[in-house]
Amino acid sequence: MSKGLPKRSEDYSLWYNELVKRADLAENSAVRGCMVIKPYGYSIWEKMQAELDRMFKETGHTNAYFPLFIPKSFLSKEASHVEGFAKECAVVTHYRLKNAEDGSGVIVDPDAKLEEELIVRPTSETVIWSTYKNWIQSYRDLPLLVNQWANVVRWEMRTRLFLRTAEFLWQEGHTAHATKEEAMEETIQMMNIYAQFAEDFMALPVVKGKKSENERFAGADETFCIEALMQDGKALQAGTSHFLGQNFAKAFDVKFASKEGGLEYVWGTSWGVSTRLMGALIMAHSDDNGLVLPPKLAPIQVVIVPIYRGEAELEAISAKANEIMASLRKAGVSVKYDNRDTYKPGWKFAEYELKGVPLRIGIGPRDLENGTIELARRDTLTKETFDLNSQPIEEKILGLLSEIQASIYNKAFKFRQEKTTEVNSWEEFKSVLNNKAGFVSAHWDGTSETEERIKELTKATIRCIPLDRKEEEGVCILTGKPSSGRVLFAKAY
Amino acid sequence: MSKGLPKRSEDYSLWYNELVKRADLAENSAVRGCMVIKPYGYSIWEKMQAELDRMFKETGHTNAYFPLFIPKSFLSKEASHVEGFAKECAVVTHYRLKNAEDGSGVIVDPDAKLEEELIVRPTSETVIWSTYKNWIQSYRDLPLLVNQWANVVRWEMRTRLFLRTAEFLWQEGHTAHATKEEAMEETIQMMNIYAQFAEDFMALPVVKGKKSENERFAGADETFCIEALMQDGKALQAGTSHFLGQNFAKAFDVKFASKEGGLEYVWGTSWGVSTRLMGALIMAHSDDNGLVLPPKLAPIQVVIVPIYRGEAELEAISAKANEIMASLRKAGVSVKYDNRDTYKPGWKFAEYELKGVPLRIGIGPRDLENGTIELARRDTLTKETFDLNSQPIEEKILGLLSEIQASIYNKAFKFRQEKTTEVNSWEEFKSVLNNKAGFVSAHWDGTSETEERIKELTKATIRCIPLDRKEEEGVCILTGKPSSGRVLFAKAY
Repeated sequence: MSKGLPKRSEDYSLWYNELVKRADLAENSAVRGCMVIKPYGYSIWEKMQAELDRMFKETGHTNAYFPLFIPKSFLSKEASHVEGFAKECAVVTHYRLKNAEDGSGVIVDPDAKLEEELIVRPTSETVIWSTYKNWIQSYRDLPLLVNQWANVVRWEMRTRLFLRTAEFLWQEGHTAHATKEEAMEETIQMMNIYAQFAEDFMALPVVKGKKSENERFAGADETFCIEALMQDGKALQAGTSHFLGQNFAKAFDVKFASKEGGLEYVWGTSWGVSTRLMGALIMAHSDDNGLVLPPKLAPIQVVIVPIYRGEAELEAISAKANEIMASLRKAGVSVKYDNRDTYKPGWKFAEYELKGVPLRIGIGPRDLENGTIELARRDTLTKETFDLNSQPIEEKILGLLSEIQASIYNKAFKFRQEKTTEVNSWEEFKSVLNNKAGFVSAHWDGTSETEERIKELTKATIRCIPLDRKEEEGVCILTGKPSSGRVLFAKAY
Repeated sequence: MSKGLPKRSEDYSLWYNELVKRADLAENSAVRGCMVIKPYGYSIWEKMQAELDRMFKETGHTNAYFPLFIPKSFLSKEASHVEGFAKECAVVTHYRLKNAEDGSGVIVDPDAKLEEELIVRPTSETVIWSTYKNWIQSYRDLPLLVNQWANVVRWEMRTRLFLRTAEFLWQEGHTAHATKEEAMEETIQMMNIYAQFAEDFMALPVVKGKKSENERFAGADETFCIEALMQDGKALQAGTSHFLGQNFAKAFDVKFASKEGGLEYVWGTSWGVSTRLMGALIMAHSDDNGLVLPPKLAPIQVVIVPIYRGEAELEAISAKANEIMASLRKAGVSVKYDNRDTYKPGWKFAEYELKGVPLRIGIGPRDLENGTIELARRDTLTKETFDLNSQPIEEKILGLLSEIQASIYNKAFKFRQEKTTEVNSWEEFKSVLNNKAGFVSAHWDGTSETEERIKELTKATIRCIPLDRKEEEGVCILTGKPSSGRVLFAKAY
């Protein structure tokens, strides 16, 4: 619609790419697979960071920073870990450039070869557990609750802005505990924090669950996750929390003197969410006019656009706008007044729709006469005339912002409900996947072989074993073997 | 003293290294030259970031994120830029590992060689200006005021925690302007913001000045800086702001349609401060007992230590401590109550001295009887008994914290004054450098040759041409040639 954004119904994938670029969220860089996060996109990410960081700190975690580089030998210390990451590693081999002797320009200096190659971190378990070995001697040093905000690199061949990029930003928590129980509690606590963040701030309903063995993090004993559904019926893994058992403690020989006087391996967890959440946020709520942002993460919650002819009208409207801005700012609402004379109101309306600003206030000369303003909601594209004398403006706006936040969540929740289907046969399974898409709840015999076969046949994977699933006798949709409960399948990002 | 920290007077360098490690600020990692910033150190860096970020935003800047990797050809586009950075570049040449066929472990896959090598960013001018080419078409797109918080890598051979590390954290501002004047104003504004941050928050007096041509940023027309003096009489460059002229605009062909209808090259600036500021903070104020932190950057401003025998005493003291904590927190003071029974009060006193907590409150049974507390200042190591009925506790503490902040600054200012010497002859110059050290204010003939010769002979460099220097006729201390004003020399970190 505005600025010729493609329609979701015609080409969802193109719609997403164009939206990301035109709403000034991100763009591809000159470096293959690496994105530039533009100021507007980054300001949404900053709001996400701030809330998550607060939640981490409230649960006793502190931030730290570990090296970007991982010696190749470190990565190899945990067998399944290196297996999982070796195929997509950016490798630093040299540490100097020099001028080519033939004058052809700058070349890598062959004399500056590293003794051991360094891997640009795809994740930091190995370098962090090598450090924890020095930090942990006794049970008094535990639990160790550390988080890191960082960039990581995974050399993906097919990339997509925010969803899958060679470099991305994330946080990775790495904790160490004296007991298995405590480590498991931490793993589940962090999954719950991610779910709470997704639902309360991103207005994104998620399913909490456990991954099947196939989909587990390389090096974990269990992976918990939150899974969300996008508007095209594909699932998106929005965050993971791993119970590492003693795998990394054993790989890096991290032991502690217990209260009872023994020497034991430490139990570990790791958990992360990334700029992928930006992709989830965009795809879950936006429409053919542009972004739809939940008010709690919108960098600009309210925009005021004056509708005027000539200086005198603008001056009178600006006086009213400034008054409204002052009231709203005092109430903690982020508000922008766009009085640029280089653009017309219609252009501005389309622009702020594209950018997903939750509420737009229009003020014209007739509004001034009547003591009213026009209020336009981004999520429903509805308008109302508000009488400024009927209620304090900040009350009205705060009320509307809460309503919008809830309404966006409810819409996504209802969509997910409609797009979650229980099936009991293979034919039904294929038919739902191909026509309706979404989450398909089905019985599975619990083996990796069957899961892989289903993926080959349908491209659907087990997104998770929902934590709240009922015990239920059934038979696997593919093999007919017995199953004790349903799992959620979907095609996924 | 406490925990056997070396004395500054005996081995300043060892004192610094040990202090950084023992106060849990940072440590060397398994990766050569890369540090681990530990949680306590990182929490100070976070406070610095928060204040700087606020100052940047208040002056109209927004954050964004650009790729970690820079194609080798980009670095080469600005001649003096590549000259400056080529000798210390980490180079990514491959994107995959594989299992060696002889079973010897994981090796770099020779089939996964990149077509063009990627440099891990030592600074981002090139990748950012290649992006700005797409963002800037018209004068309406200017000014572009962007900042990035990121990690960068410079393969330094001799590294030192915080002061010089292969990887470090920093912010880098990159702005684009329509006119030379506006770009120069921005350059100077950012130098002033850095100076204000150093003085108001770090309690660190700085000299604002311009770099000589030799010390200029590779690719800049002018470099402005703030220079601070450490307790060993060596200078430390604490922040730089570069006027880039049209150098990067020309290298990346970034032009804009002017208001008048012409097509012109854009004017640029870049500016940065890094985790090096942590080194400056530590070295400027700390003593033989440990860190001395200015209250505005201290993660814990007040610690309360109970002095007790037995449960009953602890309970009574804790009630009072909780009351005090509540009052202080309400007043915005960050306060910690250390009631661990695994450590004695004496051990805790030494620990918080080492960690630089500005104020310590001791409460014993006699204090409870008398309605008093013991207040100990970290900066002066002085104690007083405070009568809780004489003044609201939060008033007293807020007053003391301001006093400490000012007192730390004043001490550093006085030290710098004493260690700044005007000299008028070569003999005097050498003698001051070798005995008293500090800043040496001297006449210089303005040539790079003379500056280099002085560096060879004395290891001293021109730290800056102070912005507030007086016009003054004189003769160069080395060559006797005419000079129109003094510059500041020093040995530097």
